[in-house]
Amino acid sequence: MDKLSTKEKIIALETAALEAWLDGNPSPYLELYTKDFTYFDPAHERRLDGWDRIKELYESMRGTIKTDRFEMLNPVVQQSGKMAVLTYNLHCYSGQIIFKENCTEVYRLEENNKWKIIHSHWSLTKPSI
Amino acid sequence: MDKLSTKEKIIALETAALEAWLDGNPSPYLELYTKDFTYFDPAHERRLDGWDRIKELYESMRGTIKTDRFEMLNPVVQQSGKMAVLTYNLHCYSGQIIFKENCTEVYRLEENNKWKIIHSHWSLTKPSI
Repeated sequence: MDKLSTKEKIIALETAALEAWLDGNPSPYLELYTKDFTYFDPAHERRLDGWDRIKELYESMRGTIKTDRFEMLNPVVQQSGKMAVLTYNLHCYSGQIIFKENCTEVYRLEENNKWKIIHSHWSLTKPSI
Repeated sequence: MDKLSTKEKIIALETAALEAWLDGNPSPYLELYTKDFTYFDPAHERRLDGWDRIKELYESMRGTIKTDRFEMLNPVVQQSGKMAVLTYNLHCYSGQIIFKENCTEVYRLEENNKWKIIHSHWSLTKPSI
């Protein structure tokens, strides 16, 4: 019996991966990323392309991130067939510091009927320009 | 005779909208955005939701942007059925200044067989953190 909606499934996958990532463990995200994965974050001059590149980056950061708690604000899922885009504002709390990001995750339903991420875009919320 | 691939069509739509936008005219982008459009940029604390919100924002900026030229670097289109995500690095040149952005555009094929944008995520490339 699987009564979760697509939105619920995708938010559950994302939440579990975020929880691990914000505790220093990139493995759940790496398991969600596809071979043709593309990636933007605030730290790189160009888009990163392909699973091998993100694997290398995330493994270099394994164990370095520690967050007290996070909030996924106002998640929206826009779906058409086998693709869906999840967007949300992310607030991460570490002691007195709040770190805010804008997040876009493009999911695709794969042949094994599992939702995977084909594109991620992380950016800072209102950085100083 | 329409022999353009989906990738070519989407890049052509995006390029035309960008050309207008970077010359102060938001109309082509507004025509591409759907009613359920969602939007991140570096200037807002939260995601903007809905065509009316983006219309209001873009009209407030009409005529204010002027760019000498731009480059859409390394565009990639990842498609599945009626959705496709276009990603690229954008370099805008104005005099001696280069303005760099990361760009994600999620397109959806609508009932009239036209590709429209359901989500945009603009962010600064390597902002000071």
